[in-house]
Amino acid sequence: MGKQKLRIGMVGYGFMGRTHSNAFTQAPKYFDLPREPELVAVCARNRERAEAFASNWGYQDVESDWQSLVARDDIDLIDIAAPNDMHHDIAIAAAQAGKMVMCEKPLGRTAAESAEMVAAVETAGVANMVWYNYRRIPAVTLAKQMIDRGDLGRIYHYRAKFLQDWTIATDLPQGGEGLWRLDVNVAGSGVTGDLLAHCIDTAMWLNGGIDSVTAMTETFVKERAHSLTGKVEPVGIDDACAFLARFDNGSLATFESTRYARGHKALYTLEINGEHGSLAWDLHDLHRLDYFDHRVEGETRGWRSIHITDGEHPYMDSWWVPGLSIGYAESFVHQAADFIRGLEGEAAAPTFADAHRTDLVTDAVLKSGRTGQWEPASDS
Amino acid sequence: MGKQKLRIGMVGYGFMGRTHSNAFTQAPKYFDLPREPELVAVCARNRERAEAFASNWGYQDVESDWQSLVARDDIDLIDIAAPNDMHHDIAIAAAQAGKMVMCEKPLGRTAAESAEMVAAVETAGVANMVWYNYRRIPAVTLAKQMIDRGDLGRIYHYRAKFLQDWTIATDLPQGGEGLWRLDVNVAGSGVTGDLLAHCIDTAMWLNGGIDSVTAMTETFVKERAHSLTGKVEPVGIDDACAFLARFDNGSLATFESTRYARGHKALYTLEINGEHGSLAWDLHDLHRLDYFDHRVEGETRGWRSIHITDGEHPYMDSWWVPGLSIGYAESFVHQAADFIRGLEGEAAAPTFADAHRTDLVTDAVLKSGRTGQWEPASDS
Amino acid sequence: MGKQKLRIGMVGYGFMGRTHSNAFTQAPKYFDLPREPELVAVCARNRERAEAFASNWGYQDVESDWQSLVARDDIDLIDIAAPNDMHHDIAIAAAQAGKMVMCEKPLGRTAAESAEMVAAVETAGVANMVWYNYRRIPAVTLAKQMIDRGDLGRIYHYRAKFLQDWTIATDLPQGGEGLWRLDVNVAGSGVTGDLLAHCIDTAMWLNGGIDSVTAMTETFVKERAHSLTGKVEPVGIDDACAFLARFDNGSLATFESTRYARGHKALYTLEINGEHGSLAWDLHDLHRLDYFDHRVEGETRGWRSIHITDGEHPYMDSWWVPGLSIGYAESFVHQAADFIRGLEGEAAAPTFADAHRTDLVTDAVLKSGRTGQWEPASDS
Amino acid sequence: MGKQKLRIGMVGYGFMGRTHSNAFTQAPKYFDLPREPELVAVCARNRERAEAFASNWGYQDVESDWQSLVARDDIDLIDIAAPNDMHHDIAIAAAQAGKMVMCEKPLGRTAAESAEMVAAVETAGVANMVWYNYRRIPAVTLAKQMIDRGDLGRIYHYRAKFLQDWTIATDLPQGGEGLWRLDVNVAGSGVTGDLLAHCIDTAMWLNGGIDSVTAMTETFVKERAHSLTGKVEPVGIDDACAFLARFDNGSLATFESTRYARGHKALYTLEINGEHGSLAWDLHDLHRLDYFDHRVEGETRGWRSIHITDGEHPYMDSWWVPGLSIGYAESFVHQAADFIRGLEGEAAAPTFADAHRTDLVTDAVLKSGRTGQWEPASDS
Repeated sequence: MGKQKLRIGMVGYGFMGRTHSNAFTQAPKYFDLPREPELVAVCARNRERAEAFASNWGYQDVESDWQSLVARDDIDLIDIAAPNDMHHDIAIAAAQAGKMVMCEKPLGRTAAESAEMVAAVETAGVANMVWYNYRRIPAVTLAKQMIDRGDLGRIYHYRAKFLQDWTIATDLPQGGEGLWRLDVNVAGSGVTGDLLAHCIDTAMWLNGGIDSVTAMTETFVKERAHSLTGKVEPVGIDDACAFLARFDNGSLATFESTRYARGHKALYTLEINGEHGSLAWDLHDLHRLDYFDHRVEGETRGWRSIHITDGEHPYMDSWWVPGLSIGYAESFVHQAADFIRGLEGEAAAPTFADAHRTDLVTDAVLKSGRTGQWEPASDS
Repeated sequence: MGKQKLRIGMVGYGFMGRTHSNAFTQAPKYFDLPREPELVAVCARNRERAEAFASNWGYQDVESDWQSLVARDDIDLIDIAAPNDMHHDIAIAAAQAGKMVMCEKPLGRTAAESAEMVAAVETAGVANMVWYNYRRIPAVTLAKQMIDRGDLGRIYHYRAKFLQDWTIATDLPQGGEGLWRLDVNVAGSGVTGDLLAHCIDTAMWLNGGIDSVTAMTETFVKERAHSLTGKVEPVGIDDACAFLARFDNGSLATFESTRYARGHKALYTLEINGEHGSLAWDLHDLHRLDYFDHRVEGETRGWRSIHITDGEHPYMDSWWVPGLSIGYAESFVHQAADFIRGLEGEAAAPTFADAHRTDLVTDAVLKSGRTGQWEPASDS
Repeated sequence: MGKQKLRIGMVGYGFMGRTHSNAFTQAPKYFDLPREPELVAVCARNRERAEAFASNWGYQDVESDWQSLVARDDIDLIDIAAPNDMHHDIAIAAAQAGKMVMCEKPLGRTAAESAEMVAAVETAGVANMVWYNYRRIPAVTLAKQMIDRGDLGRIYHYRAKFLQDWTIATDLPQGGEGLWRLDVNVAGSGVTGDLLAHCIDTAMWLNGGIDSVTAMTETFVKERAHSLTGKVEPVGIDDACAFLARFDNGSLATFESTRYARGHKALYTLEINGEHGSLAWDLHDLHRLDYFDHRVEGETRGWRSIHITDGEHPYMDSWWVPGLSIGYAESFVHQAADFIRGLEGEAAAPTFADAHRTDLVTDAVLKSGRTGQWEPASDS
Repeated sequence: MGKQKLRIGMVGYGFMGRTHSNAFTQAPKYFDLPREPELVAVCARNRERAEAFASNWGYQDVESDWQSLVARDDIDLIDIAAPNDMHHDIAIAAAQAGKMVMCEKPLGRTAAESAEMVAAVETAGVANMVWYNYRRIPAVTLAKQMIDRGDLGRIYHYRAKFLQDWTIATDLPQGGEGLWRLDVNVAGSGVTGDLLAHCIDTAMWLNGGIDSVTAMTETFVKERAHSLTGKVEPVGIDDACAFLARFDNGSLATFESTRYARGHKALYTLEINGEHGSLAWDLHDLHRLDYFDHRVEGETRGWRSIHITDGEHPYMDSWWVPGLSIGYAESFVHQAADFIRGLEGEAAAPTFADAHRTDLVTDAVLKSGRTGQWEPASDS
């Protein structure tokens, strides 16, 4: 009501187009924001579907190519929810046009791509952010607060996994809608860029920089029909990847991701062990944070399951009453809210620069998978 | 989209006003509905807060008294999210004005009240529904489908609890905003109408009618300051209530609710045991349904935790991808969607008539708490 | 090692004969005891099986009738692990012969029986104990210590269940070995004396006396073949029983037991809610105690799962190292050890007098199941 | 009774001396064995404690040096429960004396040591076994049966961890009783030989041979007082170790162990993912096996927690009744029983030759920790 508008142009109408649109729609209803998001236009090649999407979410207009979207004067922010191979060009063009840019993860297909994207937004001086949404699951945010205030003390161990099982069927094609994640040219990599990137972003946020890694990658199904060409073609992505890492703070880590772990749909798990205590979380029960506090009386020590639904938990005073949980989509709502709040104060993370550091790690992981050597995981 | 509008007038802007407004806002984005909800006006005595609420949720107008709201020609549906003592009069007036009526639970403070409300909507022939939202948590809906198709066979046992801990402090006042649930004149009863009503609604939906009950009620804190009068006054509600029940199908049940169970915020749990298997669910992990299937091979039998996030689970094909959960608020979205879909086909339940049957049980429970006798739980 | 012997005569070689024999064999290996148990003789009608049992466990001798066992001069303690209908006569004869007496639970088939047994041991002045072994699961013992030192504060609620599923098959006969629990003449009652008696014993130990109860009992399968007569005969036991109770300290309780809860084998669960915290335990994960401590910092509060395997936990310094669990049978080992230690100091509980109080409650429960009224649960 | 005796000489009276003695004592009471274990003599340098140990467990005699024990004619089996640096010499001498040999794990401090031990028992033709007891936790045994019959189909992933937290305190000395595991000269290595050896033994039993590994090791506390010399000395063991592995069957694995994971006492966890399903187990809840069966109806699929207490589960028909669990120590009882049964039929595993293959893997892991390279994990 009288607030300045934040006029949004969206690229993409898939799964992520939906989560972002929901985020911008819901954020102002639950959080007090300095600007009012306005869904101006959505862009996608399939005009019919773009129009249906626009109608559903309340976008006022539709564009058929992203260049037109970026060129519009009535848009402040370009939000990129398109496949990975489009991130680089759109982000740079948007920055050069003076737009704020939000981008789905991973930022680039390679660290070289994302380095150029970072340069573009920094040169343009535009607000920017990458949608590593799991930082804003309230349980994960609480973990960050607890670690930062020293509840765990010195950190010894970090471990993370992201397990799925949706590509076990050998007759699943690669490429095409919903399946571009299997096409290495579009996706850049397999589980490493898609899933481990999430694990790495959270890990470096919680536990600092990663020094070096040694990795193992595997492609279980070597050939798949390509839905665009109709031919059986080699599969270029990694179906599974595990790596060992040493953090700058001296702690040790294991990371693993696969799409061949039967029974797990989106099982992102993390655990961190410190001298005073430990924390564990998983995405399948995202509303809980497990905490072991060694400093309480010995005989009553135990892993405690914190039900993250109280008003004193991060973000939760904006939602319901104690005991009543929120879901996955709300992490995007929190991120949209934080981005908008950051426009008037300290910029919200992760920025493009933060996400580039994640790309440096995924590059090192993929390289180590080829060389069998320990590889440095930063460019410093 | 040229769809017919469903023009809504809302009474109340509290916790339930928010969940209902969210439901009507989100439902058309995730479900294909025959009519388009339109938030026409919200009514509440505090005009300033009503206007803020209207602004936040997109209501076009504000009314200061419900009589004016009911009298408007541009409203199709009156949704009652006000305290219990207002349900009866508003619902009857709305029905008499030819409006559809949705009402928060419990329908009446007593079965006598709700009998009159049922008569009003049935005489008027208007669509009606009561917001027993837990039926539409997808895990609970799946339980219903499994029971109906015979997965459990003959039922032997049902048990439900709804445990909270928010009224243990003796200096918590009764009455006033957010605390009217402690004032018997407004609420009608304590945990019996507030929490056990939910348990009873689900139980009769899953397991059929309740024949008779024997109950125990308790008020642990006998006097509390009243926030409206400022005086210490006797507490008239039940702080805790437990009852035994016999269902019409011969199964036995235990029910319990309290606001004095330290560590539980909104722990609604249910379990049902049949000859072939059992099901269990709880609101603190609402995205899971536990199932024991006795018919599988003996040595691998076990309680299985079904993670209710797959497209084949009820309502879930409208949301995200496997593994990613929804929260509490979505149960209201589902209910709003079902109500609107029911306008063009079979009316969605629970209707006022269904909710009246729940009130008959809560009346019997409260009566048994006084008499110490088994009491019949229906009027048949 | 020159210690005084504790010469034991055992009646019964079934499931409980085995757990008791194991207890007396293991106790001196893990606990420092003032007397050395010596397995002198086992008595059972089937001589061949009694001899095999004696050989297996190291009993020096076999008796065919309990009168002969009780008459022996070389026995200090008669341990009754025979069906319920034999408890009364053997215990009284043993006491009159000046023997110590240990007896399986329930002490009597009725409180009238157990009253006479109490009188006998008290008149004779002999040591006596009843095998309510669950008190000595270390997690339950720790719960007792925590409650006694005030960790929970004022108690509001207690709830216990004992769920099984082994008698759902209608072709299961009643009577005979292993099945005498279905024969009311032998067992005295069904789940009430067999399973709820355990729940009641623990409950009164943890939470004090029970004032009054109202109950519901059911026999789902009304007739079963009797394995001794070969005829189909009415079933006299209760297959399921639930009751509400008020404790002397003002707290409210629910109890339930059944043998028709598919998926549960021996699921004894208990929970107690107090003003400062709550405790929960179940027999299927007997090595864990769940604890909610409201007094810790709000945002990190949660139910904590205490893994009861540390040396500081009750009894555990006698077993292995942290993290390594013990099982069901060890609860009997602890009880045997405590009984023997109690011979030189304060007598260990539960005594016959304690167990008689449990029989008063089960009598009241069964009576209420018939009358539909609240019944007093003690004779005071 | 009339059975041939199996006359046992035990070396060591510590934690493992107790578990083995318990095993030989309990095994004949619960399993029908072709030979009767007889505890002939225990050997240890501290005569007073050896005598107390002998008295407690029923050993008839005590020896002060193992050479004397091995030389006795009245002993059939030498069981080595002494620290790792004694395994090699005792085992070879025992084999050369024609005794059967059982040995605690790891078999050797290095694969070179264990190769000589294998040669000795094979040359002598004596029965031999290594106490990798976790194979005989019933849940793990059931996992083996399920994998062998194809319940999981092609295997994609294996992961195991063994997490402890008992050496975080920097003032814990190395060496001496109970602490020899911190002295590299005695132990051979740290967590790799002590804990990962267990994980590797189970893994190769369940999933076949390991082809190659890449590892990371760390010693967090670099110096500790040595309890024997009284001086601060460098710590030579690995406090933590993680490695990646490729199995011969093409599956990928991650392994990790540490003594710096706060909140975990003996958390051995394993998980295996195959095309049809997955299995998971952990030592903190050793009586449960988690199983995901992809072949059941989609909407009711879920991870199922099998409570391993039924008579149809491995070893469980010898213990109690359904629902009642056994503990850690029973895994040794099963192993003793299987060893003795194997004397009359097929020899029970793991033999010395099996355990040597585990030592080859731990050697490769430790080597990779130094080289940073992938190392072959077998000598073939």
